[in-house]
Amino acid sequence: MTRMQDIADKLGITKGTVSKALSGTANISEELQKSIVETAVEMGYTKKLRRPKNEEQKLCILIDNIEYQEPHQIAYDIILGFRQMAEPAGFTVDVVQVTGKLQRTTPYDVFMLQNNYKGAFVMGFALSAAWMKDFRTSHTPTVLFDNYIIANPAMSYVGIDNNEGMELAVSHLKQLGHKKIGYLSTALGSHVMQVRHKAFFHALKQAGLNAEPMLARSSLYINECIGKHLPKLLDLGVSAIICCHDQMANAAVIQCQQLGYHVPKDISIIGFDDLPFCAYTSPPLTTIRQDRIQLGKSAYYALDSLRNGVSIGTLLLHAQLIVRNSTGEAKSSKGPL
Amino acid sequence: MTRMQDIADKLGITKGTVSKALSGTANISEELQKSIVETAVEMGYTKKLRRPKNEEQKLCILIDNIEYQEPHQIAYDIILGFRQMAEPAGFTVDVVQVTGKLQRTTPYDVFMLQNNYKGAFVMGFALSAAWMKDFRTSHTPTVLFDNYIIANPAMSYVGIDNNEGMELAVSHLKQLGHKKIGYLSTALGSHVMQVRHKAFFHALKQAGLNAEPMLARSSLYINECIGKHLPKLLDLGVSAIICCHDQMANAAVIQCQQLGYHVPKDISIIGFDDLPFCAYTSPPLTTIRQDRIQLGKSAYYALDSLRNGVSIGTLLLHAQLIVRNSTGEAKSSKGPL
Repeated sequence: MTRMQDIADKLGITKGTVSKALSGTANISEELQKSIVETAVEMGYTKKLRRPKNEEQKLCILIDNIEYQEPHQIAYDIILGFRQMAEPAGFTVDVVQVTGKLQRTTPYDVFMLQNNYKGAFVMGFALSAAWMKDFRTSHTPTVLFDNYIIANPAMSYVGIDNNEGMELAVSHLKQLGHKKIGYLSTALGSHVMQVRHKAFFHALKQAGLNAEPMLARSSLYINECIGKHLPKLLDLGVSAIICCHDQMANAAVIQCQQLGYHVPKDISIIGFDDLPFCAYTSPPLTTIRQDRIQLGKSAYYALDSLRNGVSIGTLLLHAQLIVRNSTGEAKSSKGPL
Repeated sequence: MTRMQDIADKLGITKGTVSKALSGTANISEELQKSIVETAVEMGYTKKLRRPKNEEQKLCILIDNIEYQEPHQIAYDIILGFRQMAEPAGFTVDVVQVTGKLQRTTPYDVFMLQNNYKGAFVMGFALSAAWMKDFRTSHTPTVLFDNYIIANPAMSYVGIDNNEGMELAVSHLKQLGHKKIGYLSTALGSHVMQVRHKAFFHALKQAGLNAEPMLARSSLYINECIGKHLPKLLDLGVSAIICCHDQMANAAVIQCQQLGYHVPKDISIIGFDDLPFCAYTSPPLTTIRQDRIQLGKSAYYALDSLRNGVSIGTLLLHAQLIVRNSTGEAKSSKGPL
């Protein structure tokens, strides 16, 4: 169990200051108070937070198909950012794994009412998920990570600007002299995978590069993508590959190395998301960053806005290119050395 | 000059309550305080507002090609919404008309530094405006209304979701039985006009309707649009026309009536924006609403986020269909009765 002293130790301040910040009564700077409260949430010390006015109000984070339980997983920091805003504002936040069965048997609004949730942050839902239909007409304030519901004022879409991310990746490669770029993706059954796939071709066209359909390839499983599609891209003579996410990029790097290609001398590879492991692969991965803590905070802001009648439809954070060592100058020869 | 009593009268409360709210010391509800402060800003009573910590900090609203001085004009409420957030937070907000000459002679960041502005909200700039190039590389936190700058983390785009607005307009007309829909627009030299133009064809295709290029027509001046393009659309047999903004829609209604067409029995017309006059035209205009106060508040939120290192790229509010009397069921015959 986290004690005030643990928070004080982590921040290098006195326990008294932590106590003052958590009781909300002391004359300390807003910034320090914010930092203490956020650290308290992060460390699981939430019970004694001052809850100004939303006492007993509950929000939920609904999870399907997305990893969130460990700090290295994509949704972990997003959930943390959301809680760092919601809990100090007085909300209890439940994280709920939603099964397909629940979605098929209980309409979304009924589930929310039954559990007395005032709003939801929805993560990882495939386009085929049963509740995606319910969201079109639901009246419950709901923020969706990487999913867009048109023409329902109770729904917000929060994410990064994937179009921008893809343009950053393509123009980085173009500057390095790459002219033929491939794309590897998992199945296109989610909104974000469809957006990135479309953005890939849009970015190629913007950059005046070859945009043949065969340059983008997708499969349900990473293994199939790497085993089947990656060699085909290499046969086509691509000098760089953009991957739909960092796991795919890491698998692509390893496979290229096993096939005798040097990364990045023979082939450049870019990921998407900037998960924590990207800095530690060999070579460290160039990737497009999603600021996950800020995504979570933005999701709370959007939900708070919906609850107050401000109908945010879309809130996208800027994507950011993180250049590490998996990308380099294009060389003219196509095969392994 | 606005006195506290004026604010009290407008809100139907006592002058004492107003005084308490403006001094920021009293034990009144947060909601009432917010309402009093916003009304004070609206009525021009800003000097004695409590300015907690940003004393002497200045923001600017940069204006070009957009009407803002009267309450019936499009930018008036947007500016008001922005000031209702910025001034209680301690900022002075200057509204600055920016000339082409200033833009050509003074780089944007230099102008901002010279005037000690901490950030800007930019409205009405054409794509050809000189500073639009500066925005690509500027380091000054800047929020653009209806303009999008890619890959610069210091820039945010705020607006309504025009794609959604266009889909709402088209599906409303489709439900009324319209199959051939035209579009009238001013020149496509601004981001928002380009987006709406593209959205028109996208929405037609989504709805499975005729999407021939000749159904959309644009001219620099409304008069030319109405005099030249409107009759051509009627000749093509459209039964409904979507207009790029309410002024165009109002002019189109009048012109149709003068040509002997009844609106909406012979032809349906939809505007965009929902300016205050739309409720008073004959017939009152069906249109797509932009919530202008909330757009201004969202712009301040985005600017505040940029200034605090949260890089919002795009923030779009939901569009809303406002059905009045300029749209009705399609009839089969094409000409005037």
